[in-house]
Amino acid sequence: MIRITFPDSSVREFEPGISGLDIAKSISNSLAREVIAVSVNGELWDATRPITTDASVVLHKFDTPEGKHAFWHSSAHLMAEALEALYPGIKFGIGPAIENGFYYDVDPGDGVVLTEADLSKIEAKMAELGKLNSVYKREDISKEAALALFKQKNDEYKVELIQDLQDGTITLYRHGNFTDLCRGPHLPDTSYIKAIKLTSIAGAYWRGDEKRKQLTRIYGITFPKKQMLDEYLEMLEQAKARDHRKLGRELELFTFSQKVGLGLPLWLPKGAQLRERLENFLKGIQVKYGYQPVITPHIGQKELYVTSGHYEKYGKDSFQPIHTPEEGEEFLLKPMNCPHHCEIYKSKPRSYKDMPVRFAEFGTVYRYEQSGELHGLTRVRGFTQDDAHIFCRPDQLKEEFIKVIDIIHIVFRAFGFNDYTAQISLRDPGNTQKYIGSDENWERAEQAIIEATQEKGMQTVTVKGEAAFYGPKLDFMVKDALGRKWQLGTIQVDYNLPERFELEYTGSDDQKHRPVMIHRAPFGSMERFMAVLIEHTAGKFPLWLTPDQVVVLPISEKFHDYGEKVLNFLNNCDIRTLIDTRNEKIGKKIRDNELKKIPYLLIVGEKEEAEGTVAVRRQGEGDKGSMKLGDFRDFILEEVKKQVSNNVKLDD
Amino acid sequence: MIRITFPDSSVREFEPGISGLDIAKSISNSLAREVIAVSVNGELWDATRPITTDASVVLHKFDTPEGKHAFWHSSAHLMAEALEALYPGIKFGIGPAIENGFYYDVDPGDGVVLTEADLSKIEAKMAELGKLNSVYKREDISKEAALALFKQKNDEYKVELIQDLQDGTITLYRHGNFTDLCRGPHLPDTSYIKAIKLTSIAGAYWRGDEKRKQLTRIYGITFPKKQMLDEYLEMLEQAKARDHRKLGRELELFTFSQKVGLGLPLWLPKGAQLRERLENFLKGIQVKYGYQPVITPHIGQKELYVTSGHYEKYGKDSFQPIHTPEEGEEFLLKPMNCPHHCEIYKSKPRSYKDMPVRFAEFGTVYRYEQSGELHGLTRVRGFTQDDAHIFCRPDQLKEEFIKVIDIIHIVFRAFGFNDYTAQISLRDPGNTQKYIGSDENWERAEQAIIEATQEKGMQTVTVKGEAAFYGPKLDFMVKDALGRKWQLGTIQVDYNLPERFELEYTGSDDQKHRPVMIHRAPFGSMERFMAVLIEHTAGKFPLWLTPDQVVVLPISEKFHDYGEKVLNFLNNCDIRTLIDTRNEKIGKKIRDNELKKIPYLLIVGEKEEAEGTVAVRRQGEGDKGSMKLGDFRDFILEEVKKQVSNNVKLDD
Repeated sequence: MIRITFPDSSVREFEPGISGLDIAKSISNSLAREVIAVSVNGELWDATRPITTDASVVLHKFDTPEGKHAFWHSSAHLMAEALEALYPGIKFGIGPAIENGFYYDVDPGDGVVLTEADLSKIEAKMAELGKLNSVYKREDISKEAALALFKQKNDEYKVELIQDLQDGTITLYRHGNFTDLCRGPHLPDTSYIKAIKLTSIAGAYWRGDEKRKQLTRIYGITFPKKQMLDEYLEMLEQAKARDHRKLGRELELFTFSQKVGLGLPLWLPKGAQLRERLENFLKGIQVKYGYQPVITPHIGQKELYVTSGHYEKYGKDSFQPIHTPEEGEEFLLKPMNCPHHCEIYKSKPRSYKDMPVRFAEFGTVYRYEQSGELHGLTRVRGFTQDDAHIFCRPDQLKEEFIKVIDIIHIVFRAFGFNDYTAQISLRDPGNTQKYIGSDENWERAEQAIIEATQEKGMQTVTVKGEAAFYGPKLDFMVKDALGRKWQLGTIQVDYNLPERFELEYTGSDDQKHRPVMIHRAPFGSMERFMAVLIEHTAGKFPLWLTPDQVVVLPISEKFHDYGEKVLNFLNNCDIRTLIDTRNEKIGKKIRDNELKKIPYLLIVGEKEEAEGTVAVRRQGEGDKGSMKLGDFRDFILEEVKKQVSNNVKLDD
Repeated sequence: MIRITFPDSSVREFEPGISGLDIAKSISNSLAREVIAVSVNGELWDATRPITTDASVVLHKFDTPEGKHAFWHSSAHLMAEALEALYPGIKFGIGPAIENGFYYDVDPGDGVVLTEADLSKIEAKMAELGKLNSVYKREDISKEAALALFKQKNDEYKVELIQDLQDGTITLYRHGNFTDLCRGPHLPDTSYIKAIKLTSIAGAYWRGDEKRKQLTRIYGITFPKKQMLDEYLEMLEQAKARDHRKLGRELELFTFSQKVGLGLPLWLPKGAQLRERLENFLKGIQVKYGYQPVITPHIGQKELYVTSGHYEKYGKDSFQPIHTPEEGEEFLLKPMNCPHHCEIYKSKPRSYKDMPVRFAEFGTVYRYEQSGELHGLTRVRGFTQDDAHIFCRPDQLKEEFIKVIDIIHIVFRAFGFNDYTAQISLRDPGNTQKYIGSDENWERAEQAIIEATQEKGMQTVTVKGEAAFYGPKLDFMVKDALGRKWQLGTIQVDYNLPERFELEYTGSDDQKHRPVMIHRAPFGSMERFMAVLIEHTAGKFPLWLTPDQVVVLPISEKFHDYGEKVLNFLNNCDIRTLIDTRNEKIGKKIRDNELKKIPYLLIVGEKEEAEGTVAVRRQGEGDKGSMKLGDFRDFILEEVKKQVSNNVKLDD
């Protein structure tokens, strides 16, 4: 008998040669129907592969990243089988699972061009082949045998891939009429693939090398249930409607100019005001947490980045140095704020009693990206970090970490990001020499992060070997309203810069000590946060934040004067109000302004003017009845006040 | 008889050959004693020079720029006479009057070195010679005669200067034993110079050319009364004590780092907070005046500045272009915000009904200056303009100008700059082709500025030919507490950029029209304003603005707990409060904290703790008695509130 240990640490005994699928069956048939892959001693395996020794085992369903990976990888093979059936002689490059689905790079052969129009035909063939319930079979063969196989098949790309592999055993997977070079794991058989959608087709250079042949990349996604595909397609539709580039333009939040340059956003008035409210919100929290604002220039001498090490590491791929017309000086656009903050730390002697010192700056930084990589506000060449650097004593690290976590929680809560995961990245314990800083400091820092997350009762994933060379870190991924994940918020420990800048404080022992540095940015950057917030809220921002809170809609021109009176009254009370005096029917005015996502629409006509009232509509909710103008003011100010005080409520 | 017209337009008749001094004597002897020079038909003349034709005449006393110029120029000649007496064979370069006093560049000859130690000897000789009442005599001679004279004197520098002059008559001035090449005018005689101070000595290359000989520059200042010199020296002392570089360091407002780069200020926490309050103050006003914030990047493609014309005009002397590692792009650090704002204006179609559009940005710009030219916060390489650009219809220009003047008045009043002058710079009517824009637009704009200043009842100086090539402007010079003048605030009309960027709006006639642009910056730049404000207030900022408003001083360690309670209570009420828990006598604590210019000092001891009170001292004013803690809070919040509401009180 072999001993199988489960994630909950329970142990059961089985006959040697049992598979993950068998184990699932021994628990329940309904579980077995859902198990797609299995982790055996941390290695991802086919659910059908025999287990012959004691092992710890995790069963993966479609709802895990491992399950999805196996599912979509198998789907890529199924698509390849369909392509081979439809286009005999087609050659295959690589065909991996990706974050949402899979792709395969193929060479359909001279004279054959695949287009979007062909996708439904391929889909249909996949569905047809899928129903044959072909089993995915794993097979170990020698490199020579593998080479012979694909040479015979005339598949030059696979041959090249195999030639680059180390000598030894190579794995193939076969199903139906298709055989592929592949590490796996795969589904038990093709019947699992119930819903198929090929989403797009594009060109892709073989091995990403633009000097080599351009292959055809076909993207697709599959699901174990038809309903899941429908939901996914619906989500894509919604994501398109929420695209921050589209909404940013419609709501006049930001724009780009060809002349100013690609990837350099221009914040329009409504966007600039919204951003200022975001900044003030965070500033308010930071004051309470003892941060001190600083302001530093957007350039620094090259020397500064030689000291920090950034020049050596990133100089070649960055915006190039700025020369002076005389005196031979060289400056760089700052790619980060930390070196400047280190210089401020150094501007006077520090004592252990002064620590921690927390410098905060909404610092705009510039990083070169290829123009093809740019995307709206999420991938830009200039962005403003809600940056801060905490310089503390090693013994203060855990407490400071907890405080930063608190701030990130406050931020997430204020914007309704209630679903998030946190990843602790530690160093690779088998390779400690590649990290800077003493073992003692690393252990202390890692322990501090782990304890801090535990004390805050956070669910975390811990990944060894993912730490930066200068320190461990904690990253937050939020799920937006469409279930998409975004990285927001990061906390990093840094032993490197204090060393390179020779930062010091005088300890209680009157000796010089080196502080630890924490980098943190709850929003990440104002640009990225804005993009995520637009897509998360579909542009329906919270009342306290939204560009325009109220729009006044006079029923006809006769009531423009009263409308203006309402407008001025509310604006004077700091309620951001517009008026729509277009010569349009009230129904159209309501519809148009609903589209602008202004939370309150006030309709004014004869009755309202006579009574000094407004007829209130809530965007997306309809009529809320009539209110005295003063009462409406009190009502909306109260709502804003409640939101704001909830926002800045400190964590327990 | 000749007709003499006075500044008040009155006319009197005199015998031909009468001098300005004679005219003064005809008015009163006391006036005649003070008249130093005279303007005859706009030309500056000796007070003793005969007037032979009808003329308009202005008499200048020492309190006018023209009077000071003649006084100090004559003093330079007196110093030269003294130098020649003390150092026979000494040679002279140039010796002009400057803003405060005069200098002379001299070559004392091989082996003779003049140092600070020699200044008092030279001063004494000047005083001795001055008492001889030598008359300054004007003499016209030919170029040949002048060359012969200085060649004989072996004065190679003067010879070079004369050689560079055009042929014709050359003017000399003689007094006592000294003769100089000079256009004048000069004092009647040396007796006017009653108080002399030679202030410093420095090296200066002949004709500013570092390849030529280094001469010795001796600086001095003189006055018609001993008391005026005493006051001036006292002012210098005060200015030294108020030097913003010194106070900026002491008050921890800003710093510089060799590594970040010269002329690139780092704002320390207290400075950053103060700057934020300044920005918020102006933002509050700007919202009321209908400005809209925008945010733009700190770089722009070279193309942007080719369009704006800045690249052609300033490119060579600016920070050089930033290249990208790939794709061959070129960017420039932005030297101004206007091109970016033009691109925002262009981001959507504008109608005459939308105008004016007012974009405001605290925009950080970068301009190369030679390192030797840099000075504290007043001459830097990176600074943040409180910039705004108004795009308006030509018919809105005057109204917009008045509104900008209102804002500048509000700013000046809030910071106690009650003494200022405004200069209107118009185009040169004799040379209109060097300006861009139609005659009609120029006349309209100039008229708008003149009328706007008149309607605001402002005292202005109008200078023709001082306008920028792209439009007329209005500049404000404020006098600080020491009587020094600073340029703060500027309003410029611009016809050029709307043309170059092809800006448009649709008029009521449904045709495309070009808007006019106004550039304005009430503070000028945050850095410069900060410097002026520090020197104006000697670091004693208004209560609403000052970094720390209150410091708590426990009488001994026993009262630290109560002190902390007071500290937390006030900080929670948003009163910026510190505590001084050093183990020092209370007398020393009071003295030290008075030096830090914190407005309120709260002394707490046994009595205060028992009664829940604080003993209040006002910085520089002493004891203000005891107050209940809550009463003190109310009192200080009321004071701040009063200041703030006075600040933003709109101009009638």
